[in-house]
This record gives sequence, C-alpha cells and structure tokens, in this order.
Amino acid sequence: MTFTVLNAFTRDLLEGRMPGWVEPHFFSSTEELYELAPQAEIAWFDSYELDSTYEATRRAGKLKWLNTLAAGVDPFPLDLLRQRDVTLTNGAGLNAITIAEYAVMGMLVIAKGYREVVRSQERREWLHEAPGKMELFGSKALIVGAGGIGGRIGELLRPWGVEVTGVRRNPAPGVLTMEDWRGRLGDFDWVIVAVPSTPDTEKMMGADEFAAMKPGASVLNFARGAVIDQEALMAALRSGQVGSAFLDVTDPEPLPSDDPLWGFDNVHITSHLSGRSQNTLFARAAERFLENLERYERGEALVSRVDLSLGY
Amino acid sequence: MTFTVLNAFTRDLLEGRMPGWVEPHFFSSTEELYELAPQAEIAWFDSYELDSTYEATRRAGKLKWLNTLAAGVDPFPLDLLRQRDVTLTNGAGLNAITIAEYAVMGMLVIAKGYREVVRSQERREWLHEAPGKMELFGSKALIVGAGGIGGRIGELLRPWGVEVTGVRRNPAPGVLTMEDWRGRLGDFDWVIVAVPSTPDTEKMMGADEFAAMKPGASVLNFARGAVIDQEALMAALRSGQVGSAFLDVTDPEPLPSDDPLWGFDNVHITSHLSGRSQNTLFARAAERFLENLERYERGEALVSRVDLSLGY
Repeated sequence: MTFTVLNAFTRDLLEGRMPGWVEPHFFSSTEELYELAPQAEIAWFDSYELDSTYEATRRAGKLKWLNTLAAGVDPFPLDLLRQRDVTLTNGAGLNAITIAEYAVMGMLVIAKGYREVVRSQERREWLHEAPGKMELFGSKALIVGAGGIGGRIGELLRPWGVEVTGVRRNPAPGVLTMEDWRGRLGDFDWVIVAVPSTPDTEKMMGADEFAAMKPGASVLNFARGAVIDQEALMAALRSGQVGSAFLDVTDPEPLPSDDPLWGFDNVHITSHLSGRSQNTLFARAAERFLENLERYERGEALVSRVDLSLGY
Repeated sequence: MTFTVLNAFTRDLLEGRMPGWVEPHFFSSTEELYELAPQAEIAWFDSYELDSTYEATRRAGKLKWLNTLAAGVDPFPLDLLRQRDVTLTNGAGLNAITIAEYAVMGMLVIAKGYREVVRSQERREWLHEAPGKMELFGSKALIVGAGGIGGRIGELLRPWGVEVTGVRRNPAPGVLTMEDWRGRLGDFDWVIVAVPSTPDTEKMMGADEFAAMKPGASVLNFARGAVIDQEALMAALRSGQVGSAFLDVTDPEPLPSDDPLWGFDNVHITSHLSGRSQNTLFARAAERFLENLERYERGEALVSRVDLSLGY
C-alpha cells in the first residue's frame, strides 16, 4: 500500500476510482495536511493557501511524486524537490482552454470598446456611436510562448481570420524563436504573452519592446506579472505607443488598491481569474491524476512532468 | 449616361472607379438628397437619418435600382418598391463578420461574468473568486436564423468546441426547420437569434419559448427587437428561467432611459452597435456596389437582391 495524501476536495472525483495499491488519506485542514505530509509517498497538496502547500512539501521527506493543479510552478521549492529526487507533475494545459477563451474575450473587449458599452448601460444611455471599431478578422497576433495556453489561443484565433505567429524556445516551421521575435514586434496588432515564469523571462517586455511595437497595438499578459516591466508599460500606455493592456496578471498580486495601474482607462485588470473562470479544472486534473497513477505503477514516465531545472 | 445618386460619404470609395456610363451625383445634405432623388435611376440613399432615406425613396419615381448598406430592410417601403418594379440590393452579409465577433464576445462576457470584473477594476479591488465559471468549449448553441450572420457565428463557434445547431427556413442536413426547432429548445445553453425581421418572425421568442429553454440558459438577439416579446423575456429573466439576455437590439430603439430592461443585472444592452463596431463596412459595401454596376450594365442578376415579398 502506498501512502497517498490528497485534498478532501478531490474525494468525490477520485474515491473508488484509484487502484487497490493506493492508500488515500484526505486532509481538510492545514493541521491535517501537516500531520499527513511526512508519511506521503504520493501527494496532491493543493490548498487555497499557497503557503501551506509549500510548507507541507518541505515537511514531506518521503515524497516520491508531487502533483499540483497549478501550471506555473515557480513558487514551489524546486531545488529541494530536485535534491530529494521528487517527480513533480503540474496542471499545464488543463486550464489552457479556459485561459485561451479569456484571452480572445480580452481582444474583443478592446476591439469593440466594450467597457464603454457596459458603462452606457449603467447610465441607461443608448449609444449612437460604436466606442470600438476594430475587427479581429484580418488582424495580426504574436503569441510569445506558444505552449499549451499560447498554442490554444492560436487554435481559437486562426479560424477567425487572425494571422497568428508564435514564439517558442525551440525552432519550428512558422514559429519565431526567442532570439528573433523582437525584430518583428512592429508587425502585430496584438502581442499576447503566455511564457512560463523563469529567470529568463523576467521583464522580457520592457521599454525597448514596447517602443518596437506597432503604435497603438495592444499587449495581453496571461503569464506572470514579472514578465512585464510595469513602469515601462505605464509610460508606453501614457504616450499611446501601447494602445491597450489586458493584464490577467500583475506584479505584485493582489495589486494594491493604490497602484496607479488600476486607474488607466486603457488598462484592463482581471485579477488572475482567466484560468479559474471555469468549473472543469478539477475534473480534468483528476482524470490526469488517475492516468498518472496507472503510469506510476507501471514505472512509466508521468504525463505533464515538470523539468525541475527549466522550471516548467 | 445613367443618373446615379450617391451619399457623399461614398465619394472616396467610388469616384474614378465607376464605369463611364454612370453619371454620379453626390448629396451631402437632406436638401440635396430630396432635390436629386426624383431624377435617379440608380441610387444609394443611405444617410444617418433613416426618415430621409425613406422619404427620398418615396420621391424617386424614376428609380430602377436602390442600394442600401442595411441588412434588415423592414423599414423600407417594400410595397411601393414592388409596385414600381424597383430592384433593391442590401448589405446582407457585409457586417456578418463584425456581428458574429460581437455575438461571441457576448457569450464570453456572460460565461466569464466579465461585467463584474469591469466593476471590480473601477473599485480598485482584486477579485479572489471568478464571477463566471463557464467555458464555451463543450456548450451547445442554437442559432435561429442561420443565414449570413448566423452562419458566420456558427463558423466562429465550431472550431472552439461549441456544438452548433442552425435553424433555417429551408430543410438542410444538420439543420432544424422553422417547424421543429421549438421542440429542441431545452437542449441548448445558448439561443442566438439572427432571423430577418418579417411579420412571420415577430415575437417568435415569447413566453412559451422561454419556458421551453434549458433553465438558466442565455438568449442573444442580433435580429430586431420585435422578434422577442420583451415583457415575456423580463418575466423569464426575473424568475431565472432565462439566465441572461444579451440584446443588441430592443423594442423600441433607442430604448428609453426609463425602460425597466436597462436595470436588469442579467441583461446586457449594446445599443445596436454590433454591426457598426468595425471600420470596413463602407469599403466592403463599395466593392459590392461596383460589382453590381458591372452586372447592371450586362443585365445580370444583382448580388444580394432582396426578395420584396419575403422582405429579405
């Protein structure tokens, strides 16, 4: 029997469906989590308090495989996991559909000036002029980080007549690499950032990149706040060089109420909700976890295993 | 030479591109329009005042071909045009791309509870819970009136993993007819109305149809306000039987500021802007008009000719 520690929120999705060699222990409080963690060989520690998830990970000295819902694992103690030879599997791709839908909503909201329409209804005022007059059809989008999420955004946009170009670490046909995308920034109406958060990507969008964009183009961020130099972004938004920013993520999070970013009329802040605006994530994560239990038993490579040195 | 009366807003798009037999006369005021109308054989009377467009049509006794940007021609004097044997061509399909993008934006705004996100930014408040948790992926949409606009909505939704069913007057594979769609209303998360406005379609969505919908499903209207029984809709929205309504069109328009519809938290009113939220309509209409001039000269059937007895 393999001691397996699971959050109680997974009980309905997993109980009765796991192989016989799994001995599940469900926690429903931080105290229970800390009590169970040291005995775990397999664990799915996600709770709503990130701090306790990481503290439990630290305490789990017998751990061989740790699973998480999260796609971005930058806040996990990756060095410690590597040192202990723990396999980490993450939720990469599980929320890609949801985030991609959110991203296109962001583009549409900007293109059609939809926020002004919301405000007109609050004033009970019939608008006679459209506040936004752009079509996505025929526009051009650059997706910086065309992985699970970025790739899905491209899949949604291409059938709509948007010309999509991806940026990836590894060269591929029709894709720009991390070395050559900056020289092409001026070609695009939309720059959509969906890279993993690593030391390499910190502030990868700064003053130089905003200056190289097509004047009035929009930037959308679904990666991490730290990927954008926010001071440089605010300067580019003030001058109009960047037309609009749709920021699902900010630095820091939550964004303090006195941060000037909130007040920009061409900034859209969506409180890191893009991946959570759905109710299928847990079910999809549970299916993947069950598949990985079978693979674990057979000694096969697990689906969605994180490279602990790359950080994604 | 053929006396042709055109709004001055088409001058840049048409001048120098029309065949030699066309004698263009551009009007830039209602007075000029009324003065020129009686001599017109060909006319494109659209102005921003609908009343003067129709009055000019009434005065145009020599008219053989009337063109309009509008897709819905219900406010035109169709009987008079038929009696005078005038060919009417309309803008059907020209704004289909724009309206279809707007329709999917409406679905996304409802699915993700995006209006609450807009309001949270105005309060400078970071939201910790997603106000909408629905994905379009895997949901089911009924498109009542799968013509130019409705068909394009389907083309946008299918690659997103939405199961789309169309309703058309004429039977076709995979399409419901006007006789059998009501019995299927309970199957859909989205009911999207994009029928032409004719006596047949007036109040086609009433108390019975709302009661037959899946509880909590949404209705979106991009046709005409009169297609929906607004009193019945408000009752269904109050009870929650209809979860949300996204109304690009209302009855009447503009909707008076004291109309109770404005105040519903599950109603989205977009002031008939869906087709105007783009800047390509005039260019597309001019291209079609130029093509039709060639066809007119050759005595061929014109593109997008309205059937004056059907009204679309």
